[in-house]
Amino acid sequence: MPTIKKIDHIGIVVSNLQEAIERYKNLLFQGPPHMEFFEPAKIELAFFDIGGVSIELLAPTAPTGDLWAFLKERGGGLHHICYQVDDIHGVLESLKAQGFKLLDEKPRPGSRHSQIAFVNPVSASGVLTEYCQFPQT
Amino acid sequence: MPTIKKIDHIGIVVSNLQEAIERYKNLLFQGPPHMEFFEPAKIELAFFDIGGVSIELLAPTAPTGDLWAFLKERGGGLHHICYQVDDIHGVLESLKAQGFKLLDEKPRPGSRHSQIAFVNPVSASGVLTEYCQFPQT
Repeated sequence: MPTIKKIDHIGIVVSNLQEAIERYKNLLFQGPPHMEFFEPAKIELAFFDIGGVSIELLAPTAPTGDLWAFLKERGGGLHHICYQVDDIHGVLESLKAQGFKLLDEKPRPGSRHSQIAFVNPVSASGVLTEYCQFPQT
Repeated sequence: MPTIKKIDHIGIVVSNLQEAIERYKNLLFQGPPHMEFFEPAKIELAFFDIGGVSIELLAPTAPTGDLWAFLKERGGGLHHICYQVDDIHGVLESLKAQGFKLLDEKPRPGSRHSQIAFVNPVSASGVLTEYCQFPQT
């Protein structure tokens, strides 16, 4: 049976990334986060590390896509949870066999050189659920 | 300056706790969670531990209160993040001094013998943000 290594990150969608970073530096009593631009989805990312689990702030830079729609609908906020695993193919096969609805039947490239896949929130009590695997795992 | 010890838990509101527990046992590849009933708010809780961070499923047992309203409005889903600290009074003083809007000016009893306090989501990019401190810390 696959296992979860840890919670990798909690995704929070924000409209103004710089403003959110200043807030989270204060809320988390931390210095500047790790920054990344995820080109495929045109999303700016900021990662605050808390004991190996990241608070991921996501800001869409183009007025399209799921994150933009989420911003428009809810004004931002908690968006998804990502679990780090060491066998993402095994996870997807297992979940599919149990009837979970997957948004990604196969892993695809994510940020930080990871492979990622999402489960439909309808299968996870309304929570957009992501799994990720990193090359070194 | 106060410090965050770790992310204590991520709160997910569900309508049917038993159904959600079965789903999460499969999503997290885990056995039965730790269960608790939080009398002051009449909430049933289930905690799945992932490397020291809990996925907390919350189900209101009475048709009143914030969680019930959240269920009615959104059908459940991601609800809050809770950070464990070792000086919750210091955290609240620091945040208040910086202009954060607090839902609890002073800590109050939470589940698992903790002291808790919430920050208004308007001060945290739309995220209901909780801090908790345990007796042994």
